[in-house]
Amino acid sequence: MKYKFIKDGGIATPQGFKVGVAKSGIKYQDRYDLAFIVSQSSAVAAGVFTTNKFCAAPVLVSKKHLMECQEFRGFVINSGCANACTGEEGYSDALKMTEEAAKLVGCSSEELLVASTGVIGMQLPMDRIIKGIKVAGSDMSNDKGHLAAQAIMTTDTVSKEVAVEIEIDKKKILLGAMAKGSGMIHPNMATMLGFVTTDVAISKECLQKALVMANKDSFNMLTVDGDTSTNDTLLVIANGQAGNTFIEDENSEDFKNFAKTLKEVCITLTKMIAHDGEGATKFLEVRVINSPSEATAKKAARSIVGSNLVKTAIFGKDANWGRVVCALGYSGAEFEPNLVDIYLGELLVAQKGRGLNFDEDLAMKVLEKDEVVITVDLNLGDYKGTAWGCDLTYDYVSINAEYRS
Amino acid sequence: MKYKFIKDGGIATPQGFKVGVAKSGIKYQDRYDLAFIVSQSSAVAAGVFTTNKFCAAPVLVSKKHLMECQEFRGFVINSGCANACTGEEGYSDALKMTEEAAKLVGCSSEELLVASTGVIGMQLPMDRIIKGIKVAGSDMSNDKGHLAAQAIMTTDTVSKEVAVEIEIDKKKILLGAMAKGSGMIHPNMATMLGFVTTDVAISKECLQKALVMANKDSFNMLTVDGDTSTNDTLLVIANGQAGNTFIEDENSEDFKNFAKTLKEVCITLTKMIAHDGEGATKFLEVRVINSPSEATAKKAARSIVGSNLVKTAIFGKDANWGRVVCALGYSGAEFEPNLVDIYLGELLVAQKGRGLNFDEDLAMKVLEKDEVVITVDLNLGDYKGTAWGCDLTYDYVSINAEYRS
Repeated sequence: MKYKFIKDGGIATPQGFKVGVAKSGIKYQDRYDLAFIVSQSSAVAAGVFTTNKFCAAPVLVSKKHLMECQEFRGFVINSGCANACTGEEGYSDALKMTEEAAKLVGCSSEELLVASTGVIGMQLPMDRIIKGIKVAGSDMSNDKGHLAAQAIMTTDTVSKEVAVEIEIDKKKILLGAMAKGSGMIHPNMATMLGFVTTDVAISKECLQKALVMANKDSFNMLTVDGDTSTNDTLLVIANGQAGNTFIEDENSEDFKNFAKTLKEVCITLTKMIAHDGEGATKFLEVRVINSPSEATAKKAARSIVGSNLVKTAIFGKDANWGRVVCALGYSGAEFEPNLVDIYLGELLVAQKGRGLNFDEDLAMKVLEKDEVVITVDLNLGDYKGTAWGCDLTYDYVSINAEYRS
Repeated sequence: MKYKFIKDGGIATPQGFKVGVAKSGIKYQDRYDLAFIVSQSSAVAAGVFTTNKFCAAPVLVSKKHLMECQEFRGFVINSGCANACTGEEGYSDALKMTEEAAKLVGCSSEELLVASTGVIGMQLPMDRIIKGIKVAGSDMSNDKGHLAAQAIMTTDTVSKEVAVEIEIDKKKILLGAMAKGSGMIHPNMATMLGFVTTDVAISKECLQKALVMANKDSFNMLTVDGDTSTNDTLLVIANGQAGNTFIEDENSEDFKNFAKTLKEVCITLTKMIAHDGEGATKFLEVRVINSPSEATAKKAARSIVGSNLVKTAIFGKDANWGRVVCALGYSGAEFEPNLVDIYLGELLVAQKGRGLNFDEDLAMKVLEKDEVVITVDLNLGDYKGTAWGCDLTYDYVSINAEYRS
């Protein structure tokens, strides 16, 4: 199965999707902060959500709609306010967002999913939100994908979009996606916000299954700061306009090809979020190989990529592999300390659990790059796991010492 | 039971203990880096250690000695090198430290416990260590407690010592203690290094039990950066010179009084470590009250005090209680979101899980102090738990981007 990236593609790329945006003034003036994504025909949808017990009102509403409804038309999303810890008022506001949007689409409110991102504990300014929904809904087109990706940003410095094309059942299938990340990023079901559109014809059950599989190896392997947000949401909507034979068997080749592509789309967004982690100067990829199980490999990779001491060492270009070992040691992963090899890039720095007299100049060459790969070989099996993150810098502290105000 | 703090007291305060120190030049010149603490008479000892799978050689040696031996004479400790990930050579070096020290005390090497702190992955410079042990052992006295507390420091900016006096069985009982902390502090059995001497007469079993109880409510409730070190060690030695009736019943009043005092000593050191966390400008105490269980209260308190986003908000004096709620939500603790109240100092900022329009000026007054207390009322039961930590600052990043080199 081959897929190809579509240059300048995004959430509006697949057939039959339209996008509207608005500058509602939720937190900032003159900045896009509301996006409205609609399929022109009925579609199926799937979602994965935060495991944080304080999950936000839009998460509760989207979960309910996914549970109760079989057909969907789109997403309505705002940045600038998370609508989390907002009580019953917050819940009815999230519902209201779907109701207002549904009027413009001409569907029932249950056919729309909703997501919010921003400061926790503030109520949504509903007058501005409703105006924004009306503005976004009154001028929808398929060339506003880039604006939608901008509208969902908070402290992100760049927007994150991807679109790919594959062939399934001799039909061209398109997937478009966008995400926002930056801080409070340690997904434990999904990232802060991620959205995928596709024109594939697929059952709701198969779509949900493909999304869970994709999420497990992408957003769930990402950390910026270890803080699992109240609003993590990853949604996908599939309208079938590609005209392929309906995918409803999860053992079919078509399903596997679609699921693999969806995973690649999610991994691409995950890496974009890691690159743009709050204050990040470096992208960090930790690969744990030859593990006795996939669970151990993932647990170990996540622990290392999340260690503040590993992250500051990467920022400081310090080949301090002892911190990698330390984070592996407290990860809870099963391994044998005396078998562990550690590589910075291609450079072996520790072997069988103890340090080597490696060439510091070669290590510096690895650490000077914008992308650093650490490989941990457990020498105990055939499984592997990869996690993504970024360094911990002065700017992370600066951004987060000032974020709310 | 009353206890009183002894001004300028420390590890050498209890009867029958002597201390020696040396400037061995392990990592830095002209800086104390080796401490040797000896009881003049036979004593019992107890210890708790890191749960990191990569535990350091001195941890392995001390555990072995505690397991195999009934009587002890003291501790030998170095800073500047952790002797972790150092293979068989590291293990035999740690043993050698106890052997060299034993020659000077005139005891068997098994009667001594050993601890190291510093960079992971370097071998100990044994020539300098042995010279240092000889220097320290040749001039021991009971007025070098302060120097010993200095000798175990790494990135600590102040030494951490405490001594208290209690009365048990109408005898004056003394406890002296010291610790080092600063970074890689997220103890999961004990802190980086903590040592307690006491002249109480007690059984080895009762001493171990008292130590485990004390550690659970003190060092195990501390986090600076979420990184559980390879070398965490908390040791206590009791030589019985106070002459109290031998404590061997863990249900006796005497045991309870001693255990409670030992806990207070450990909490005092824990708070000192939190105050002096790497780069810290503020001490943070998180109290979770009215919890359905102690485990839930502790889990929640540790999660909040360990959140990078809470820590940066405290640094930035931002009353961003949403981050407290977020860290509570992903802690894994059992609670009911709609019942949670949050206080900054005495100021109620969120009630029943949603935000209040609190007075930002009053919040700023709380956040401007050097010590910030956050109280989370779960309104679900009678249990409580407290955790300690510090803010996350530019200096933490600075220190850890440069530590090894």
